Amino acid sequence: MKGKEQSKRFEIRLAGEGGQGMILAGVILAEAAAIYEGKYVVQTQSYGPEARGGASKAEVVISDEPIDYPEVLSADVLVAMSQEACDRYASNLKKEGLLIVDVDKVKRVPLTTAVKIPITRAAIEASGKAITANVVALGVLVGLIGVVSREAIEKAILARAPKGSEEMNCKALARGFAEAEALLAVKQKAQKGLAIGTWDTG
Amino acid sequence: MKGKEQSKRFEIRLAGEGGQGMILAGVILAEAAAIYEGKYVVQTQSYGPEARGGASKAEVVISDEPIDYPEVLSADVLVAMSQEACDRYASNLKKEGLLIVDVDKVKRVPLTTAVKIPITRAAIEASGKAITANVVALGVLVGLIGVVSREAIEKAILARAPKGSEEMNCKALARGFAEAEALLAVKQKAQKGLAIGTWDTG
Repeated sequence: MKGKEQSKRFEIRLAGEGGQGMILAGVILAEAAAIYEGKYVVQTQSYGPEARGGASKAEVVISDEPIDYPEVLSADVLVAMSQEACDRYASNLKKEGLLIVDVDKVKRVPLTTAVKIPITRAAIEASGKAITANVVALGVLVGLIGVVSREAIEKAILARAPKGSEEMNCKALARGFAEAEALLAVKQKAQKGLAIGTWDTG
Repeated sequence: MKGKEQSKRFEIRLAGEGGQGMILAGVILAEAAAIYEGKYVVQTQSYGPEARGGASKAEVVISDEPIDYPEVLSADVLVAMSQEACDRYASNLKKEGLLIVDVDKVKRVPLTTAVKIPITRAAIEASGKAITANVVALGVLVGLIGVVSREAIEKAILARAPKGSEEMNCKALARGFAEAEALLAVKQKAQKGLAIGTWDTG
């Protein structure tokens, strides 16, 4: 029973500093999964004494069945937008979990398999605004793990985008997906190279 | 132990339809309590099959100590911005709990003691925009129960207000507080009237 539930339950944690839009990203991801994909979702912010220090964290639990425990137990994915967030939450990732970091903000990464992307820089390049970093992060996350469809996340973002910011957010999302696709392409190439023995890791 | 925890735990549910800003109101109230008042706070959205129907609900649990269970067990306050929200959640209020409804949206109110305010109409009157109804609701709620200070809720609103919407949101908040003050004044008058035996309920 426990095993069955675990396999249907998917846990995502988005963490960074206040002003990086992690909570809004959590709300948007939850709405994509619930409203546009018909999943059961619980989305949570827990604040303790660290809230005054500016730390910010959103959790999203997605399931095909009703969710009995609303908070993340052991994350399948962690998006860390600050060193502090990475230090605090990386150890809670599942063994096979995915760590995505903004490589310009997180210099010490505890896992060799982490996905390192200059998320905020990509946001500025794609949309002209650092505040779309949360949308780039959603593009990377959804592009890599497909927990919701691209259509669902796009609809959810547009439903929450302030008037006039739709185009900027679409550009940021597209950039996030492009970053994910580039990574997956490299991975595929690497696997192919390894298979035929010609891949050069240098 | 249980009794002690219960007394320190305050549970608020904000419910309505999608687009009324209940989730953002929950996030803002949580941030007011956590960031500006130093409380422990958990803020949650739970979505089931009703999410596709447009129902929207945010929960905020505020405590002086770490929160063991993150979701509302039995609400101290319910703000209902739609008939469906009122029908669904009013029965979960604590016996001495406070029900606040948008009286233009909620025609059948199950409690005689409910606070009935034309919240959306007041938002339009105060700020010109119905989308500030959530901020009016926060003003009413904080004005009546003082779960956070006026300064804290104002700071939290301004930190989340899109650029250019600050004045509009301040007007909406002030209107919410004015509605609460008017209600409290009537109550005081009523009590005074009852005390000296001259209050006319007609």
